[in-house]
Amino acid sequence: MTTVHRKAHFNAAHRLFRPDWDDAKNAEIFGKCSNPNYHGHNYELVVHVTGDIDPETGFVIDMKILKQIIYEEVEVAFDHKNLNVEVAEFRNLNPTAENIAKVIWHKIRKKLDRALTLSVTLYETPRNFVTYTEN
Amino acid sequence: MTTVHRKAHFNAAHRLFRPDWDDAKNAEIFGKCSNPNYHGHNYELVVHVTGDIDPETGFVIDMKILKQIIYEEVEVAFDHKNLNVEVAEFRNLNPTAENIAKVIWHKIRKKLDRALTLSVTLYETPRNFVTYTEN
Amino acid sequence: MTTVHRKAHFNAAHRLFRPDWDDAKNAEIFGKCSNPNYHGHNYELVVHVTGDIDPETGFVIDMKILKQIIYEEVEVAFDHKNLNVEVAEFRNLNPTAENIAKVIWHKIRKKLDRALTLSVTLYETPRNFVTYTEN
Amino acid sequence: MTTVHRKAHFNAAHRLFRPDWDDAKNAEIFGKCSNPNYHGHNYELVVHVTGDIDPETGFVIDMKILKQIIYEEVEVAFDHKNLNVEVAEFRNLNPTAENIAKVIWHKIRKKLDRALTLSVTLYETPRNFVTYTEN
Amino acid sequence: MTTVHRKAHFNAAHRLFRPDWDDAKNAEIFGKCSNPNYHGHNYELVVHVTGDIDPETGFVIDMKILKQIIYEEVEVAFDHKNLNVEVAEFRNLNPTAENIAKVIWHKIRKKLDRALTLSVTLYETPRNFVTYTEN
Amino acid sequence: MTTVHRKAHFNAAHRLFRPDWDDAKNAEIFGKCSNPNYHGHNYELVVHVTGDIDPETGFVIDMKILKQIIYEEVEVAFDHKNLNVEVAEFRNLNPTAENIAKVIWHKIRKKLDRALTLSVTLYETPRNFVTYTEN
Repeated sequence: MTTVHRKAHFNAAHRLFRPDWDDAKNAEIFGKCSNPNYHGHNYELVVHVTGDIDPETGFVIDMKILKQIIYEEVEVAFDHKNLNVEVAEFRNLNPTAENIAKVIWHKIRKKLDRALTLSVTLYETPRNFVTYTEN
Repeated sequence: MTTVHRKAHFNAAHRLFRPDWDDAKNAEIFGKCSNPNYHGHNYELVVHVTGDIDPETGFVIDMKILKQIIYEEVEVAFDHKNLNVEVAEFRNLNPTAENIAKVIWHKIRKKLDRALTLSVTLYETPRNFVTYTEN
Repeated sequence: MTTVHRKAHFNAAHRLFRPDWDDAKNAEIFGKCSNPNYHGHNYELVVHVTGDIDPETGFVIDMKILKQIIYEEVEVAFDHKNLNVEVAEFRNLNPTAENIAKVIWHKIRKKLDRALTLSVTLYETPRNFVTYTEN
Repeated sequence: MTTVHRKAHFNAAHRLFRPDWDDAKNAEIFGKCSNPNYHGHNYELVVHVTGDIDPETGFVIDMKILKQIIYEEVEVAFDHKNLNVEVAEFRNLNPTAENIAKVIWHKIRKKLDRALTLSVTLYETPRNFVTYTEN
Repeated sequence: MTTVHRKAHFNAAHRLFRPDWDDAKNAEIFGKCSNPNYHGHNYELVVHVTGDIDPETGFVIDMKILKQIIYEEVEVAFDHKNLNVEVAEFRNLNPTAENIAKVIWHKIRKKLDRALTLSVTLYETPRNFVTYTEN
Repeated sequence: MTTVHRKAHFNAAHRLFRPDWDDAKNAEIFGKCSNPNYHGHNYELVVHVTGDIDPETGFVIDMKILKQIIYEEVEVAFDHKNLNVEVAEFRNLNPTAENIAKVIWHKIRKKLDRALTLSVTLYETPRNFVTYTEN
């Protein structure tokens, strides 16, 4: 079993917030992370792809291809953006690290060969991070 | 499957030592790690909690709660302490990284909801670390 | 000559923006950093304080005191905030890393003994950072 | 379940290259990684060993022994070497990160007690890394 | 006084070697770093530029411009190259970390405004690094 | 001006403590850092040596020599030791980070050529560190 890992990053603003709750309820549950004026992070992403080593190339997946998928699906979509306001997936989904990791997993999954297994780790800060895997 | 990870740290003194062995036997087996005058480390801890994403909050566990559990169970108990002398769990248990990780796992486990799965990684140094999981 | 260094961090949203320019001009000069909906960073701060070692304590400055100054002047003021909207110093000052470092320098400087020299380093990302010193 | 992790490193030159392809075909598939004059990396290695904690010592494996195995099997063999030219395993095996990890896994595996489980992670750069496990 | 710092990296092969010495003399003085088959590194570069904060933009230098200068002068020239064989500056100059830093300093210096001061730090490994400044 | 930097590390126990004060006074001034049973750290050391690049070797100082000086003067003397009890320099000198850095500076200084300038940075934790330079 061989897993290749590729790191990437993006900077974004967000707030923890449910649009079906008012600001008072959001503040009560999410604390300062619910600041209506937003705060932000340098998100670090590690994408883990598991599969067999291709005996011809010695690769599980060509890193140039994986890097391009991450660039298109994550960096172009999220970098220097306000996640709540500008990213369609979070219009009705609270952009917690868990949910951002889940959204990224689905965006990358649909671009990968079905023989490969995918997992993603998202660092919201160096001290708080999340790993998401779906089968 | 979603895992949230939370980092914490504490500084402590210890020596590798079995009280049922004399210092000569401890030195033979544990080398300079058995120095009777102690040495110490900046321990880095990563706590991994696996569960479902709560659709209401978008959290596996509220990080404020996990941070508080780690603070009470680990930081208050171990930080700036001599593990052999001042921490009850190591009176009769050699404070290797493996055993410290195991003790921490049990202390945090008893504070967590049974639906959540727990694993802990303890860095004794940046080059030596241990991951402990029990079912 | 002895310098003590203390690290701290805060998360914030910002945009590069001059209120006396319109959005088009801001976008032309500041690119995607000028996104009107903001983006954000995990800012890492290192505060450098230079002075003599007090022969009584062995300290240049008591780290507990320096930590408290940083907490009050920087973390309380900037953490989980929108710098442009919520921090008075940036109402009319573009929150570039250079200017944020300068503002932090002045906030900490006024709390330190005049015999001590101060410098601050602010990481906007792990790849972009700034050091500010004034005499 | 307890896993101990040990970090090590080595510097080496390599090129991605199949001797049964000409330079043009190698360049087409492997890009600049196939430069005939070689390039190189600071490889970081993490060796993961899983087993039971020995109740006598508190160790899964004595780190001094694991460190010595890594030194003999990996550092002596690979450090400051040209992997394609000087390391027998890569005479007919393309030294991708995947294949280097696989070779390391086999070299360490044969020195470990069968009761222990082994996995290795090899960082080719801080952004590209590979984990290899075989049962 | 304000300094902006920008990090970059490149991978390269090299050997410590004077072409006017034979391999035996090179090996005697430079040890395993003189391996005729080369070894390599992930070089990390930090470029430090000191100057005044432009009151109009809030920048010492536009990071997009500095990033582009580093890309053209260092990354294009050195990345995935064999420094001894493929980089003209090292045909007759031993590619020690000191000399590589000096060459980089001169390449970047000639592209910068004379009002700015330049210094560069080059990491050959995380444990060995060099800072070069010329007036 | 060229500075070479070399990283090293050691693990040690210490307590902040003046033998001419009683434990109560030590506790009042030094807080939990004065715990009579000691605590400890993974100290990281960076040694900075400034001088001219030798045109024959391309070195400011041969890193193998600098590494050996650090090993003999710092690692052998401090690693896995109790600084207060086992290191002569701290019998009557409080082992604050400032004072440890000063002691290390003097130990390395006496082994270096007078044409070289020396500075040392000592990390007590990743968040607290000290730089010491004397002329």
